[in-house]
Amino acid sequence: MTAIWDDVISLDERKAYEAAGFGKRSGIGTRPALLIIDVQYRTIGTEPKPFWDSIKEFPTSCGEVGWKAVSQIEKLLPVFRKNGWPVIYPYVAPKEAFDTGRLADKVPALMGVAAKGYEFVPPVAPAAGDILLPKRHPSAFFGTPLTSYLINNAVDTLVVTGCTTSGCVRGSVVDAFAYNYRVVVPHDAVYDRSHTSHLVNLFDMSAKYADVMSTDETLDALSKI
Amino acid sequence: MTAIWDDVISLDERKAYEAAGFGKRSGIGTRPALLIIDVQYRTIGTEPKPFWDSIKEFPTSCGEVGWKAVSQIEKLLPVFRKNGWPVIYPYVAPKEAFDTGRLADKVPALMGVAAKGYEFVPPVAPAAGDILLPKRHPSAFFGTPLTSYLINNAVDTLVVTGCTTSGCVRGSVVDAFAYNYRVVVPHDAVYDRSHTSHLVNLFDMSAKYADVMSTDETLDALSKI
Amino acid sequence: MTAIWDDVISLDERKAYEAAGFGKRSGIGTRPALLIIDVQYRTIGTEPKPFWDSIKEFPTSCGEVGWKAVSQIEKLLPVFRKNGWPVIYPYVAPKEAFDTGRLADKVPALMGVAAKGYEFVPPVAPAAGDILLPKRHPSAFFGTPLTSYLINNAVDTLVVTGCTTSGCVRGSVVDAFAYNYRVVVPHDAVYDRSHTSHLVNLFDMSAKYADVMSTDETLDALSKI
Amino acid sequence: MTAIWDDVISLDERKAYEAAGFGKRSGIGTRPALLIIDVQYRTIGTEPKPFWDSIKEFPTSCGEVGWKAVSQIEKLLPVFRKNGWPVIYPYVAPKEAFDTGRLADKVPALMGVAAKGYEFVPPVAPAAGDILLPKRHPSAFFGTPLTSYLINNAVDTLVVTGCTTSGCVRGSVVDAFAYNYRVVVPHDAVYDRSHTSHLVNLFDMSAKYADVMSTDETLDALSKI
Repeated sequence: MTAIWDDVISLDERKAYEAAGFGKRSGIGTRPALLIIDVQYRTIGTEPKPFWDSIKEFPTSCGEVGWKAVSQIEKLLPVFRKNGWPVIYPYVAPKEAFDTGRLADKVPALMGVAAKGYEFVPPVAPAAGDILLPKRHPSAFFGTPLTSYLINNAVDTLVVTGCTTSGCVRGSVVDAFAYNYRVVVPHDAVYDRSHTSHLVNLFDMSAKYADVMSTDETLDALSKI
Repeated sequence: MTAIWDDVISLDERKAYEAAGFGKRSGIGTRPALLIIDVQYRTIGTEPKPFWDSIKEFPTSCGEVGWKAVSQIEKLLPVFRKNGWPVIYPYVAPKEAFDTGRLADKVPALMGVAAKGYEFVPPVAPAAGDILLPKRHPSAFFGTPLTSYLINNAVDTLVVTGCTTSGCVRGSVVDAFAYNYRVVVPHDAVYDRSHTSHLVNLFDMSAKYADVMSTDETLDALSKI
Repeated sequence: MTAIWDDVISLDERKAYEAAGFGKRSGIGTRPALLIIDVQYRTIGTEPKPFWDSIKEFPTSCGEVGWKAVSQIEKLLPVFRKNGWPVIYPYVAPKEAFDTGRLADKVPALMGVAAKGYEFVPPVAPAAGDILLPKRHPSAFFGTPLTSYLINNAVDTLVVTGCTTSGCVRGSVVDAFAYNYRVVVPHDAVYDRSHTSHLVNLFDMSAKYADVMSTDETLDALSKI
Repeated sequence: MTAIWDDVISLDERKAYEAAGFGKRSGIGTRPALLIIDVQYRTIGTEPKPFWDSIKEFPTSCGEVGWKAVSQIEKLLPVFRKNGWPVIYPYVAPKEAFDTGRLADKVPALMGVAAKGYEFVPPVAPAAGDILLPKRHPSAFFGTPLTSYLINNAVDTLVVTGCTTSGCVRGSVVDAFAYNYRVVVPHDAVYDRSHTSHLVNLFDMSAKYADVMSTDETLDALSKI
């Protein structure tokens, strides 16, 4: 079986993980929710452009790879809405004067993003009935009432999309796994500014925390619920 | 400036992160604690052996790379004890019959590790006064009272060691960052069964969550508190 | 309608709460779990005795009122086991040398309880398959993976028993409510060393967080699931 | 020593708590923060009125007792601002369409409070530099990044004011205690719609979680830091 990370993770490493017993499937339950994480202009720009052009508009932009992922999220979104499954938007809250701390230390550029950057990207923007979840830290669970919403909606499975693969997606997936949610990461519906890091984080998540598959495979799996 | 991940993360990717403003230092505070995560026989075996031999004893073993990291942790440990800085051992709790869930789904091999595997590795085992923290999930913060111990001890900085770089270390570092602790990851005192994943996770943490440096550099920084 | 707290909470106060809209029922779901909190010898003694005698054995004992509640928990327990509903034992973990902090400040007597005091009370002790949850703080959710177990078991309702009404029961109920679990507190299956505080905490929980009813009413409601 | 709850908690009950070792002081540290919880028009009305008149404006109003507490908070606030100690406003976030759940079940009247009710009460309203913390659940810690702000500001002590004593104040105090913060509750700077519940919750907190004293005693203690 081939995987998208085969060019980055060596055959020997893949065999080592297999021998140690990692990477089984956790499967999909009966009540999924869709997480669309940080799909705001600040992470892809107001229009598709190559990375180096796009970061001129927003230093936090991932550029074109983000727009490609958005086109995949556009396939998932109507399926959740049609089935009445929760659609949840954890998103970066605009910074306040009191938001000093380690984020401001490590990535000071994040503190001065223009207001426009916090707007949702129209093709996959929230609609009435969706759950909005401002957040100040990587994981969608950290310092937010996400778990309360999931419990109230009897959710057992999370389909996690958005960005970045190595940042807020990864952090949210690790927490979702720890809470015992079944997690699916459609690898073409998440994005990152580093292709290598994107692939290795998908490998990590597939080995330990989530079922990683394409958006089309995800749609197929959801159709069988 | 060169970094240990330069062979895996391309120059173009590194430039992209730099242009976007990532990877600044968060620095060290005045009251550090040492986290020694999962340094139990189950992650390195009862004696140093190459990976493929070591996993015959424990499928979860990382083999020789783990023993090398232990020799670095041995340098850090006396410094913390001498200064009266907290030494904390988040460790994998032996599995109970009721520990089903996503971990058992994704990595069933983890559920049958022999009791010996849960013992601490002698050179860096807990001593009287250290804080023991059994855990059932990747992050040392998840489902544990770690934050309460840190607050009680007025800790502002965490030096995170142990394993795996891409698993419990990464998960703990992301949470520590979110709680606004200053985080140092000595790259030669953490270990993983995949060298690629080890390096990319160090790159990710250095870009966004922690100051990554060698154990010797860490010792030097601590000596200046 | 009369309630057990009518002698302590004045009619005027009860009318005020009613006028303000408090105290509606949240109801029972379809998948309940039973929490038996801190029913260890330390909270009732090794045999039924009046309070003032019982605290000579364990200063933390509530005495006879605890034994009465245990006899009610004995009615609930077989119903959960028979239906395969989760039975969960959040319990006070024996103190370690590193367990200093605010609890040791406020109630130093708690730090020296004899080992015998941590044993479960036989009539309602854990059986194979039950979930054990050592805790160091009042709420069964705080610093424990309780939520992960509940999500893994698709629980939507918690029946909370044990002690003390004003301490670990109250703390756990407030958190359960915040997580959006439906909560039932059988008022004769929880106990406290202060009768007044017991009643007022039941009133508070009934007004805002839980459905408070007798064990018999609880059994009746459970029989209709 | 007399206490404000002596008329509600019997002498025998108070002796029982004393014999069992409860109610010692945890003391004040060196870096306090002030929590002003839910002091919005919805909890006291837009002007001081007796309870039964005030709830006509907002069903959640506590009426005149709230205004009296506000006058005490007015004494504390300048001391914190002058010393550069953090001032934090956990407040009830306006309800969204997706805020169904147990709160809507138990207290449906809370879901329809007019927008004006969410405004801060002018005499103790936030100023530039204060930390704002919208919340959806009783405790100021639940589903919020409060701990991250406290750690970033090296806080070791919380002075908790606002309302209600038996609701969000109590819930926040229990969590603050569990996180090992030293907690002071100035009994005349917190308020509740039930005087009995107010007093018993103060007794509970004093016995187990916090140092309860008057605002004047709090000011005196703070002056010695």
